Amino acid sequence: MINIAIIGYGNIGHGVAAALKRNSDMRLAAILSRRPEQVKKEVKDTPVLNSERFTLPPDISIDVAILGGGSKEDLPVQGPLFARRFCTVDSFDTHADIPAYFQRMDAATKECGNVAIISAGWDPGIFSLERVLGDAFLPGSQRFTFWGPGVSQGHSDAARKVSGVLDARQYTIPIESAIQQVRSGQTPSLSKREMHKRVVYVVAQAGADREKIRQEISRMPNYYDEYDTEVIFISAEQMAREHATYPHGGFVLTSGTTGTGNKQLTEYRCQLASNPEFTASVLVTCARAAFRLKAEGRRGAFTMLDIPPALLSPQSNDVLRRNFM
Amino acid sequence: MINIAIIGYGNIGHGVAAALKRNSDMRLAAILSRRPEQVKKEVKDTPVLNSERFTLPPDISIDVAILGGGSKEDLPVQGPLFARRFCTVDSFDTHADIPAYFQRMDAATKECGNVAIISAGWDPGIFSLERVLGDAFLPGSQRFTFWGPGVSQGHSDAARKVSGVLDARQYTIPIESAIQQVRSGQTPSLSKREMHKRVVYVVAQAGADREKIRQEISRMPNYYDEYDTEVIFISAEQMAREHATYPHGGFVLTSGTTGTGNKQLTEYRCQLASNPEFTASVLVTCARAAFRLKAEGRRGAFTMLDIPPALLSPQSNDVLRRNFM
Repeated sequence: MINIAIIGYGNIGHGVAAALKRNSDMRLAAILSRRPEQVKKEVKDTPVLNSERFTLPPDISIDVAILGGGSKEDLPVQGPLFARRFCTVDSFDTHADIPAYFQRMDAATKECGNVAIISAGWDPGIFSLERVLGDAFLPGSQRFTFWGPGVSQGHSDAARKVSGVLDARQYTIPIESAIQQVRSGQTPSLSKREMHKRVVYVVAQAGADREKIRQEISRMPNYYDEYDTEVIFISAEQMAREHATYPHGGFVLTSGTTGTGNKQLTEYRCQLASNPEFTASVLVTCARAAFRLKAEGRRGAFTMLDIPPALLSPQSNDVLRRNFM
Repeated sequence: MINIAIIGYGNIGHGVAAALKRNSDMRLAAILSRRPEQVKKEVKDTPVLNSERFTLPPDISIDVAILGGGSKEDLPVQGPLFARRFCTVDSFDTHADIPAYFQRMDAATKECGNVAIISAGWDPGIFSLERVLGDAFLPGSQRFTFWGPGVSQGHSDAARKVSGVLDARQYTIPIESAIQQVRSGQTPSLSKREMHKRVVYVVAQAGADREKIRQEISRMPNYYDEYDTEVIFISAEQMAREHATYPHGGFVLTSGTTGTGNKQLTEYRCQLASNPEFTASVLVTCARAAFRLKAEGRRGAFTMLDIPPALLSPQSNDVLRRNFM
């Protein structure tokens, strides 16, 4: 039995708790939170500790800590801190900062004899894996990653900061005709605008200037200005009723040739009713791999690119070779 | 530079030679064939040796041998034989016999300090990987593998043995409505007939009883009787003109839930203008991994489930973390 701690009990943390119930070789040993009193109201059958100052009681043993925090403020601090005490798994997803974060986690874990699997989930994570496989199997190929249809937390937050906006939810929508172009074997040069559009549902303050909100959102640099953006005003009730879930998904397409020009195309796609639950489910498989890697005597930071896929699986090697090959 | 030998110069062997030209860290060091004189007529710039009795000249060094032979007669003999001399990669694809073949290759390589990667390609191979990932990420999920549209060599050969048939080419066609059912989040129980149909193009002898051929093919046990089969008679010229290539492809779909029933779906798909060239391209990446595993001091048999994906890639770990995550 692998003992798991959840550190940070937000959307991902809740997803991890749910996923652990479906993996009989693992159990939830503790939840560590900055707001332990609040979590205790919700969670009755699991020890809840204060993540900022805790002494592990002698009856709690933790093999792997799954870090549910965000990449902007939580993980850069919590990652190296907890990786000195436990094996860790996280979903650090600021793509540009992954190499630096890897170095810091590698140093922390090697210092203390632990294993840290960073940037796990579906992107980064599974999609990274599929991009690497596509590039390896088809040298010189072109790769295309499309996201959505799904909710982007970052873009929702950005829209929510516009003056006059009470609440906002942003959906990233892949442009179907662009996907079809790639699927047909073409390798077009696509601008950001040609690959995705954005739809933002906004609850505005009473009396707010809606046209001004619309323009301020759609012209926002980095987030919206390079895309076609549709802003749709709805009521708070409609927001609560129709936009309370976190669907997402995406596509990794690799288009290349072999031999004297034979067209070869691979595609990975996921279609998720709950983005945080699926991400959490992937993190849980990585916790299994971290536990096994440490048991093999390995140390340091890993990404999903560095892990033999069999280590993620609850099945034995014999069963994998007999039933899954 | 990794020195590669091709053993068996058929469709796969030709594909390997083509793939090596696109991988600058590898070179073709030698071709070993049972018909060396015939291969020499075609290949001018590479040493060609008799695979059944050869002494490696001192100027030829081989790091990894890629075995291009078939699973029925060639690999059960050649695999353990060559794995005692070289690191090997093969595409052994008799699914039911993979566990036993693995054991034999594991014993042969451990005896001699080599690495053998067995059953590589797209199925078994990439599809195996996707089935394992789907099962790990979504415990309790259902997995569906569809093949085609594409040419099945085994079914073509079987049809060719029917009396009155001069030539035959069988296409496996996945049933689109079944794929759509799974994609929509359903987990139907599908019979073989409900997942695939078969279309056979036949060149018949002059005066042969076409209705008898049609019935004999479509009622053939194991190969055809469990499917809806269409038999289409064409001329030898048409066969040569329209059915000379080996397209193939397929789908691995995993349909499951997380949490309190949120539907999650993943799909891997490939669409191949040349099945043997793509398979060969995957084998070449496994040759790179075999070389690296041996350099790390590893010994024994591996499948693609046992290999960290980064080892397949020509890119450095730094580049992978910077550009592919």
